[in-house]
Formats: sequence, structure tokens, C-alpha cells
Amino acid sequence: MSTTIDMAESSNAHVNEKAALIGAPARPGGWKKGIAIMDFVLRLGAIAASLAATITMATSDQILPFFTQFLQFEASYDSFSTFQFFVIAMAFVGGYLVLSLPFSIVTIIRPHAPGPRLFLIILDTVFLTLATASGASAAAMVSLAHNGNQDSNWLAICNQFGDFCAQTSGAVVASFITVVVLMVLVVMSALALGKH
Amino acid sequence: MSTTIDMAESSNAHVNEKAALIGAPARPGGWKKGIAIMDFVLRLGAIAASLAATITMATSDQILPFFTQFLQFEASYDSFSTFQFFVIAMAFVGGYLVLSLPFSIVTIIRPHAPGPRLFLIILDTVFLTLATASGASAAAMVSLAHNGNQDSNWLAICNQFGDFCAQTSGAVVASFITVVVLMVLVVMSALALGKH
Repeated sequence: MSTTIDMAESSNAHVNEKAALIGAPARPGGWKKGIAIMDFVLRLGAIAASLAATITMATSDQILPFFTQFLQFEASYDSFSTFQFFVIAMAFVGGYLVLSLPFSIVTIIRPHAPGPRLFLIILDTVFLTLATASGASAAAMVSLAHNGNQDSNWLAICNQFGDFCAQTSGAVVASFITVVVLMVLVVMSALALGKH
Repeated sequence: MSTTIDMAESSNAHVNEKAALIGAPARPGGWKKGIAIMDFVLRLGAIAASLAATITMATSDQILPFFTQFLQFEASYDSFSTFQFFVIAMAFVGGYLVLSLPFSIVTIIRPHAPGPRLFLIILDTVFLTLATASGASAAAMVSLAHNGNQDSNWLAICNQFGDFCAQTSGAVVASFITVVVLMVLVVMSALALGKH
């Protein structure tokens, strides 16, 4: 009789393990583990995107091949305070995402404990805002560098500094990927917290 | 006997009402009603801030008192595509916040149902991102209008267009207030979803 019970239990555990792997709701709460694993994987993607944004922006530097007696024409990210803010903010976001990995692992091990998820969703929201602010302000500057503005007599600089513009645009795209992933992380955490 | 039970019930309801008003956890779950009421009040504040941001930005328009034969100097929000985006995005945020009020009332009436809260936290996150993006990009432009940029030869225009700059700065501040309130709303909803 006891053997039968053991077998039933082990088969149940097997089903549960499988459910966690494919993310299917085999029993109530099994899908929470699936969400926790997806959270971890998405977090790795966000780390890659945020570090790519930071490094691409921080290495953007172009010196034009012509110069006058007194002047050399150079564009680098630290010419623009918005781009400096971008580098610092995205480095913070990347650092936070790395430090949040252990908490994401805790939610995989204990998918039903609300504590680590609450901690993650609150900090994710804060760093989502930071990443959005830096990405959007850098996007405004990149768009200005591309198009200029007639009324205020700001000329487009991308004709001269083509490589610089391409590199900063790439960094902005990477920061927007980080923002989208962070939004998905917040929504997933909210779903896992809300359903029982 | 039945009279006694009625009295006990009404006294219990009275305590509960009081707990909801002062937000104290008189019984488990009573604080959820307090959070729902605070959510509603903060939402009203966010509506005011987002509408103030929209209207302040949309009415920013300055014509300089001198002009040449062919040219009149005018700065208005639709000279800058960033400011146009700001007006449209903040109007969307304000509209969403107005439409979300009924759902906030539902969470006050049924503080233990996770459905409306989930709905609110997900849409709040989306519109938090939208509000942050518009506020941050407008802030980048306002800062450029104030300080200019040496390396790209973009001159500050706030010396000429002082009123325009003051008005757009005010709109940016109002949008940041909206962002902070939306962040608090997301965190409060997360707390209410997480604790049982």
C-alpha cells in the first residue's frame, strides 16, 4: 500500500518538473515556476542590452580628419550632458540587473513566496523609469543631431559626424530593448503575484 | 438574542469603516481598502498633474516684439517634434488616468479581488513608461534650450524666448510629478497584490 503512495508521489513530482520546464500549468502554481525561469532568462537578455547600450555610448568618439590651426573637430559622448547621463544611468541599470539575478533564482526555488517577487517588482519599476528616462532623452538628442531644428537655428551635425550619430543611435535602440524587457518583467511579476 | 448579533455586526462594520478612513490595519485586509482609497486620491492628483503638463505645453507660444521685413520670430511647442510628442503622450496619460478611475473605485468596493488591481498595475506600468519617455525627452530639449551646446554649435535660445522656456520647463516639472505618482501607484498595487 505504501509503495503505491510513493509511486503516485514520484509521478506527481515528475509531472511538476516537466511542467516547470515547458511552462505549462499542470497543477496550480506550477506555472509560477515557469514564470520565474522566464524572468531569469529575460533578465540575462536585459543585462546584455543594457551593457551594450552603455559600452556603445561610452565609446562613441569621432575626430574629423580636417582641422584648422586652432581647432580640431571632435564629437564624443561627453560633449552632451544627456549622453553622459545616459552612460551613467544605463550602467546603473545593468549593475542592478546583475545584482537582481540571485533574487530571481530565489523565485525559481520558491515560486510561491511573495517576498522576493515584491522586492523585484518594486526595484524593477524604479529602474524601468530610470532606463526609460535615459533612453528617451538620448533619443531626443539623437533625433536633433539627425534633423536639426529650423526655428531655433540648430543645424544637424550628422552630415559631419556620421559614425558618431550611428553609434549613439545604436545605443538608444539597445536602451529601448532594455526598457521593453523590464516592462515585460514587471507585468510577469504582477501576474505571478496576483493569481493564486 | 438576534438584536445582540445585529449590534455586534453594526459595531464591527463601524470599526471597519473607521479603519478604511485612517488606513490602519484593524483586521487582515482592512489596510487593502486603505490602499485602494489612497490609490483613488493619488490618481486624482496624477490627472491634475498630467492635464496641467498637457495644457501648459500646448499653450506655450511666444512671438518676439521685433521683426524684419520677411521674418517674424516665433517659438511655439510645434516647432519642436519632441514637444509635440510630449503634448500627445501626456494627453493620452491623462485620458487613461480618467478612464482608470472606475477600476480604482472597484478596488475600493472589493479590496480583495486581484483582477482589477492586476488590470490597473499592468496599464499603469505602460503609461508610466509613456509619461517618463515624454517627460525625459522634453527635459533634454528644455535643458538644451537653456544651456545650448558648445561642440555642436547649438546656441541657447532662452535669452530671446524667456517666457517660452519658463512655460515648457513648468510642463516638464508637471510631467515628472505625474511620473512619481504613477510609480507610487504601481508600488502600492504590487504591495496589495503580494500580501495576503
